[in-house]
Parts: sequence; structure tokens; C-alpha cells
Amino acid sequence: MTTTSSDLYPVSRLAAVREATAAAGLDALLLTPGPDLRYVSGYDALPLERLTCLVVPTAGEPFMMVPRLELPAAEHSPASRLGVEFVAWDETDDPYAHVAHRLGSLTKVGLADRMWALQSLRFRAAMPDVEQVLAGSVLGPLRARKSPAEVAALRAAGAAIDAVHAQVPQFLKAGRTERVVGRDIAEAILAAGHVTVDFVIVGSGPNGASPHHELSDRVIQPGDAVVVDIGGTMPSGYCSDSTRVYCVGEPSPEFVKYYDVLKEAQEAACAHVRPGVTCESVDAAARDVITAAGYGEYFIHRTGHGIGLETHEDPYIVSGNTTPMEPGFAFSVEPGIYLPGRHGARIEDIMVCGETAGERLNHSTRDLVIV
Amino acid sequence: MTTTSSDLYPVSRLAAVREATAAAGLDALLLTPGPDLRYVSGYDALPLERLTCLVVPTAGEPFMMVPRLELPAAEHSPASRLGVEFVAWDETDDPYAHVAHRLGSLTKVGLADRMWALQSLRFRAAMPDVEQVLAGSVLGPLRARKSPAEVAALRAAGAAIDAVHAQVPQFLKAGRTERVVGRDIAEAILAAGHVTVDFVIVGSGPNGASPHHELSDRVIQPGDAVVVDIGGTMPSGYCSDSTRVYCVGEPSPEFVKYYDVLKEAQEAACAHVRPGVTCESVDAAARDVITAAGYGEYFIHRTGHGIGLETHEDPYIVSGNTTPMEPGFAFSVEPGIYLPGRHGARIEDIMVCGETAGERLNHSTRDLVIV
Repeated sequence: MTTTSSDLYPVSRLAAVREATAAAGLDALLLTPGPDLRYVSGYDALPLERLTCLVVPTAGEPFMMVPRLELPAAEHSPASRLGVEFVAWDETDDPYAHVAHRLGSLTKVGLADRMWALQSLRFRAAMPDVEQVLAGSVLGPLRARKSPAEVAALRAAGAAIDAVHAQVPQFLKAGRTERVVGRDIAEAILAAGHVTVDFVIVGSGPNGASPHHELSDRVIQPGDAVVVDIGGTMPSGYCSDSTRVYCVGEPSPEFVKYYDVLKEAQEAACAHVRPGVTCESVDAAARDVITAAGYGEYFIHRTGHGIGLETHEDPYIVSGNTTPMEPGFAFSVEPGIYLPGRHGARIEDIMVCGETAGERLNHSTRDLVIV
Repeated sequence: MTTTSSDLYPVSRLAAVREATAAAGLDALLLTPGPDLRYVSGYDALPLERLTCLVVPTAGEPFMMVPRLELPAAEHSPASRLGVEFVAWDETDDPYAHVAHRLGSLTKVGLADRMWALQSLRFRAAMPDVEQVLAGSVLGPLRARKSPAEVAALRAAGAAIDAVHAQVPQFLKAGRTERVVGRDIAEAILAAGHVTVDFVIVGSGPNGASPHHELSDRVIQPGDAVVVDIGGTMPSGYCSDSTRVYCVGEPSPEFVKYYDVLKEAQEAACAHVRPGVTCESVDAAARDVITAAGYGEYFIHRTGHGIGLETHEDPYIVSGNTTPMEPGFAFSVEPGIYLPGRHGARIEDIMVCGETAGERLNHSTRDLVIV
């Protein structure tokens, strides 16, 4: 990943993050393994109980605490390009005390949003008078505005998951269970170039009415509508996420009726995307269509979530989020209609906000696919 | 998983956990998705930014906060057997304020060890005067003593990963890269019954000297020693982890010499396991053999880690851990010798402490396997 590292994870990012940290009134960021650390350093470190932590003080030089046995892995990672000191610690050392001592007197630190309590509470004990806030307050706005290289990585992820949806009609047959279909899809996700399968939702018949249903042993029946919501992570670190609806044989007229409403709502939200409109107005653009058609009470979740190094990240497309869209924002647009105990539907594309309009990164058909 | 749920995740556990929480002087546990939540409830919830949290107060009834769109999944999970109230919250609600309000006045709460800062800092803001400690202080000792059903689940995981090691000689050939070999192993881990591949380390030649090296594009050479350390998670939730060393053709006499020392050290540590001996004495049993043979400086990590719902959990087999072994403790015994830049070796079995001695849960040969 040498070529992509420099584009996706530019060395210059560390200085920009330091500047933003100072501007936010924080004295340091403490970044343990996860998307925040990867964003700043490119290092896809294993999340383990032993402390790996990139320390980014606004005064003084950044350094990275590394368990001694992870040192070769860290040295071979993109983090080695940053030119920061790697401080290897041994099994019986206290790395939290070391960080506290080295940082000296501070007022406020930002913790990686996914830092485990195992680590945040130890940092608190080692620095009892220091206020802990989320590193996301600094990194969230930076991470939300994707660079051209990041948009390219998301576009590649979109193409990979589109290739999987193209195969779903081969897997979906009456008489097979959701779980068996899900296994085929999981293999196809890896074969399409993802390094991990992050989720496989196959919601058939009444299970389609549960938005986060995963897989069950339910046998797919003729006439079932099936919600297929799938995603994985690419070698770049960037994620895919796309939902399409399939029908095993002819759908009921009632289902077709609200599916058409849903398609119109998803289209309206996508068409609404441009710089300056608020995130909540994109939610409203989808919701208004569904509500006007009388299905408002069946659209029980927000319209979307940001996506990048995490499947769910800023910006959230939800009522109350008045953040204006900016070029580079990448997020899902995924309204749904769910009739409890009966069936449901959701259509989801990843979009990126461009200079004048939104661009969809998923291109498989949004029509109901009859298999 | 209906049958295994009742054995592995007994409903009676919740009451035992509540009692231990009170005994530890805590007012409540707050358990977000991860191994702590699964241990107490059997619920393998997705780790997401929306709050799912089992709240276990010592006074008052337990309840579970669930995002409304996760409610059907929660209701279909083993957590439904607990008879606790599921409190569904909507996209624009504040579930942290709800928990704080419902719990009322408290002094000290235990957070799931893997709770994200995203959640722990929001709980802190919602309950500013409440001391946060690790739920692990209550759950760690309970989770460390495996029940017979948990030991059976770990034994099944051991057999599954043994079946993968049995196939490694077919995958390992001079001229193939570590990455390609690693892909074959990952597929075999799933085919052997795991639901996730947790790690695949193929450290060939000099890469074997980096204990947490994963996979590289290095082409395996004739004469290479190759450290293969692999593991996954079974449908039960319990993990496997085993390391063996292979040699592509004849090994060097120098390598054979220290491999024999390592094998003797691993055997000594395993033989030392019994109730009442300290965790650190098991580390010492391996380390003494290696040090006496002159390789002490090349054994750069602890001897092992507990294993169960996490690959790494209590008890740690490390100098300084004076906890006495108890029946049901399950942990790795994995000494290693690493000659930087040249080669390395590690032998790892999962063991469980029985009533009078330890039992190995891995049974593939510990001899150097020539392929």
C-alpha cells in the first residue's frame, strides 16, 4: 500500500491536525488504534489491551507509544513516514504514566472516539486533573471533508459493492435460507476486493421490516421481498455500504406501491444534495415524500450517515443536524419503509457532495429486481 | 444458538453479576456492545455509535437501552430471555440523559472495558459527579473462571484451529508469498467452523522474529522457518489461538538448537499449571528454561494471556501477576525466541486449569514441522 498511503494518508496531515487541535483549545490528542489513528498516521494497528497511542501535543513533538513486540509492525507501517519518535515499552512498564510524565502539565486532551474505557480510565488516573474530550471534536470536521484521494477510494469501494449486488440474483432463490444466501454474499464481498466483510443483512419477507436484521435460518418463500444491505472495508481502509431490494417472483401490488414512493423519496434526497444545504434538509427531502404518501410513521430511522474509514461517521443526515453540506462530504442516502410483521424496503446509495451537486458512488439499478 | 445460549449464557448469570457488583461497592454496570455485554446477556450486539446499553443497577431493576431500529434484533437475541425491560429510543432522543435520570443519585458505576470514549464521555457529561471505574473489576474475575460449558466451547475452538494447522503444510511452499498463504489459511479458518478470522500471522524467515508481524508480500524461501499464529471466533462467541512453527526444507542447526529449548520451556510451563500456583510462576517456568540456555534476552514478551470471549483477557501470564490459578482459568502458554533480522519461533497452546493440573486444548504436534 505504498502508493496509496502517500495519497490517502499524506504526511502533511499530522501538522494540519496539530494546528486544528491548538485552534480547538486542546493541549494534545491521544490516538489509540482505530479510524482516528489511521486517519492521522495511516497505521492500521490492531486494537489490543496493550497501549499503542499516537500522542499529538500542540506544544512539543508528537510521539507514539508502542508495545515492544509491536515495534517491528509499527516500523513497517505508514506511520514510519511521519518521522515521529516510537517509544517502545516493555511488558512491566506503565505506558500511561510515561505519557503523563512526558506531556507535563495540561488542561484538556482529546481521546480517539473509539478509545476503550480500559485505556481512557487509565489515562484519567494518570492525569487526574486533565479534562478529557473527544478527539472527534477536532478530527470529525477534518475527516468529514474527503480529499480527492479519499473520494477515489470510496468510489472504488462503491464499484466493489456494486459488483456484489450484481451477483445477488444468482444467490437468492426460494427454498434457501437467509444464512446460506448471506454466506455466498460474504464470499463475494471478499472476492470483489474487500479485506473484511463488515455486515451482511438479508431481510426476507417480514424480516425486511427490521432495518438491522442480519441473517436468520428463515427459508426464503416465493413472493418474498428481500432487503439486502451489505458492506465491507477495502485495503485502503475505506468502506462500502449499499442496499437494494429484490423480489422472489412477483411482488404484491401493495408492496410495489410503497416501493415506488421510496424510490421517489431516495431520488429527491439525492437531487437535493449540494454545498450549503443542511444535513437535516437532505433528511427532510426524503421524509417529506414518504410522509406525503402516508407512510411517514413507517420510516423509523434517519436518512443516512457519513462514511469513510468508518461505516458510520460524521455527517449524520438526521433531523437536528444543521451543519451545511460542504464539497467532500460523503454519506449514505437510505430512506426506508417498514411494515412491522409484513415486509419492508430500503434503497441506499453512498453520495459525495461535489462543488455544485451530489455524485452517487453506487450505480446498480434502484428498480425492484425480480429474481 | 438456542441450545448453546442457555448453557453458555445462563439466565442466572445476571443475578450473580448484580451481586458481585454490589459486593464491589459499585452502584451499577453500564454494558455497551462487546464481550462484557455478551457475557452477561448472550447478546452479540453490533458496536455502533447509537447507544445500546444494558444497565445493571444494584438497587432497582436492570434495563436495556436499545435504538428503536435495533429493537427487533435485540428481541430476537438471547438477551430477551433475561426478562429485563428494553427501552427503545428514537433518533432525536438523548439516551444518556435517560439512563442518568432513571438511575437517579449514584456514586460509582462500572463501564464495559471496551466502551468507546464516544459513550463513556457522554455518560460522564450526563452523570458528572459519578465516579467511573472498569466493569472488568467486577466481571474480570467472573469471566476468568470458565464454566464447564465455556470450557467445552473453548475445546471446540481448539479442535477447529488444530484442523487448520493440519492443513498448513499444504499451503506453505517456497515461492509463495506470506499473503497468499495467509489467504488460504483464512479460508480454512472459516471452513473449520469459525465465524470470523481474528488474525493470521505468517512470519517467514526474518519476519518470524517480529512476534506480531501479520502478512507481507515476502516470498517464502527454501530453508525458511515460518511462524504461523492463527485464530478466530466460533459461533459460540469463544475464540481460538494457536501457534506452530514450520520449516520449508531443512532448518539450520542453530535454529534447531533454540527450537528444542523453546519446546522444553513451553512444556515446563504447561506442566507447572495447577490450582494455587501464581500466574507469574507459569511465566517464570518457561522463562527460566530459556534464560538458563542463554536465550533470555530473545524472549521479549509475556508467556500468555487469558482467552474466552476475547482473544486477550484476564488472566495474563506475566511477571507481576501474583493471582493464584483457579480451576476454570483458560489462557495461552506461548513462549518465543526471536533473533532480530534472522528468524524466530513461538509455540502456543491454549490451556485450562483443572482441579489438579492443566489441560491443553490444542493437540497438533509441537515438533518443528518440515514441509
